[in-house]
Amino acid sequence: MKQYTVAILGATGAVGTQMVQCLEEQNFPVGKLKLLASARSAGKKVAFAGGEVEIEEARPEAFEGCDIVLGAVDDDIARDMLPKAVEAGAVVVDNSHAFRLDPDVPLVVPEINAEDISWHHGIIANPNCATIIGLVPTWPLHKVAGVTRMIVSTYQAASGAGAPGMAELEAQIAAMGRGEAIPEPRAFAAQLVSNLIPQIGGFKEEGYTSEEMKLQNEGRKIMHLPELRVNCTCVRVPVLRSHSESVTLEFERDITLEEAREALAAAPGVKLVDDREAASAHDRYPMPIDTSDQDLIWVGRLRRDISNPNTARGITFWCCGDQIRKGAATNAVQIAKLLTE
Amino acid sequence: MKQYTVAILGATGAVGTQMVQCLEEQNFPVGKLKLLASARSAGKKVAFAGGEVEIEEARPEAFEGCDIVLGAVDDDIARDMLPKAVEAGAVVVDNSHAFRLDPDVPLVVPEINAEDISWHHGIIANPNCATIIGLVPTWPLHKVAGVTRMIVSTYQAASGAGAPGMAELEAQIAAMGRGEAIPEPRAFAAQLVSNLIPQIGGFKEEGYTSEEMKLQNEGRKIMHLPELRVNCTCVRVPVLRSHSESVTLEFERDITLEEAREALAAAPGVKLVDDREAASAHDRYPMPIDTSDQDLIWVGRLRRDISNPNTARGITFWCCGDQIRKGAATNAVQIAKLLTE
Repeated sequence: MKQYTVAILGATGAVGTQMVQCLEEQNFPVGKLKLLASARSAGKKVAFAGGEVEIEEARPEAFEGCDIVLGAVDDDIARDMLPKAVEAGAVVVDNSHAFRLDPDVPLVVPEINAEDISWHHGIIANPNCATIIGLVPTWPLHKVAGVTRMIVSTYQAASGAGAPGMAELEAQIAAMGRGEAIPEPRAFAAQLVSNLIPQIGGFKEEGYTSEEMKLQNEGRKIMHLPELRVNCTCVRVPVLRSHSESVTLEFERDITLEEAREALAAAPGVKLVDDREAASAHDRYPMPIDTSDQDLIWVGRLRRDISNPNTARGITFWCCGDQIRKGAATNAVQIAKLLTE
Repeated sequence: MKQYTVAILGATGAVGTQMVQCLEEQNFPVGKLKLLASARSAGKKVAFAGGEVEIEEARPEAFEGCDIVLGAVDDDIARDMLPKAVEAGAVVVDNSHAFRLDPDVPLVVPEINAEDISWHHGIIANPNCATIIGLVPTWPLHKVAGVTRMIVSTYQAASGAGAPGMAELEAQIAAMGRGEAIPEPRAFAAQLVSNLIPQIGGFKEEGYTSEEMKLQNEGRKIMHLPELRVNCTCVRVPVLRSHSESVTLEFERDITLEEAREALAAAPGVKLVDDREAASAHDRYPMPIDTSDQDLIWVGRLRRDISNPNTARGITFWCCGDQIRKGAATNAVQIAKLLTE
């Protein structure tokens, strides 16, 4: 079996660190692993596959000999560095926003459009985390009845702002728990503990934020539905890890609750947790505390949208998924694995 | 000016305590204040209007001589005790769910249907907190264009479960902040700190919870819109106080964003906080940290619903309001004040 030289650009961040772990967990055929980060981290050692890998400074020369480069850096660095990896002969799977809407770049959720990797020109983009988490359970329902409209309110964890976001929420919880003043926010625009921040990303067209428009623009590309209508409201919540979403869908054709339940129960990447009678809340519906640090999107609270004038064509559900894993690292490693198959 | 003998049934809970403060703040013409609670609290003293009021045990005889009784107890106690207050000659404003959908009982948000108090038969009901907070900003938009459909996802604070709910979240934050085990949940079905619980109330028809159906059933009664279509998802979030809601509305007639903004800016009980350009997040949109312990519903993130096939008839916004105040005590005291006018 062929072994691959794999590099992770941004190996010390929340997503990069998780990618190292996902490569191991998914039994990725890694011949050599290169961990690239800022000069500041160079020389540090990271455990991998029973050994250790030393972090190198991320310079274009480091891409020489790489088969696959996983990008886990900000848009600017991705735009600057990753084309050099392609020039060096690697195929790039990039988690940043930089290339996602480029018509020459496939944007892939393996459970939905794995076939799109076939037309890549060196770069394959990994979608936004809230987009992946909302689309994985929407797709099997779309296949039953054709989704035309999505109305989504998100409940996004601190992990979406990376390790600094998680550290900031933890520090705020610690301060509040000790009755001390809350430290000045840096990763977020306001205090997050015991608060909600209804803005993720900058404001774009029509008063929607960049994060909110991703669900529409990336969703249309991933599902090959250029006319899909999406209304998204993105809210940061004081949860360390795992995003949640309240999703209302409208369909072209009738869909029964039984059909929806069967489609979700059979869907790859989905775990249906929907038992109103369960004694424990943990068995009744997904909660972020239960969906952290695992790879599936959990779906529950499945019901008719009783506000839809045509109730036979409306479905509402609640879903939770780990933003660092399936929302980022897991999905990227799944794409890379498709490249090896 | 006539002075009224006012009793608060359930005077020691989160809502009852707030009612005492609201009577003072709203300059309610209180001749005598009676604070009724369980035998356990009898004899304790509460500050009011520069003096002190001693808590009495809540027994039917205590209603003798009362003009107005404010109910801040659970449904069962309300159902048992409040008809006795009516028999004793008082008018009751009740915050429980017990009488809200009774066709003989007006259900009132003063900014919306103050005129309904005219046909009471001794009891006037105060609506559910999430219902009040969602409807106060919906009503002025309804008056412009006729609302036909509401899709709402809530972000409800611990205060909705009363003082025990707030104490439980505070204890969990303290434990997490000290790195200790989270105490076993009692007020909520699961740990709330760093988590979300997508269930408030028991499961009712079609898989919606009792809390979710209130927005439909109470909303129809308050706004006199028996055909209003409502899809609500209620989620408990780790916020101490102030509920938030992501609201999408559909209308019978076209409504411009400018009309919506003007209607909200002019609406009683509403504060429009919607300035994308503001340097501070606190001036950009409502957040629960800013809307706690005050009486207005703050509205922001006002924008077209770009998912509506007829975008001229769709509006989306975000709102926050204090659940103990406008969601309960403030609204009840406002109703009582209408009775005196």
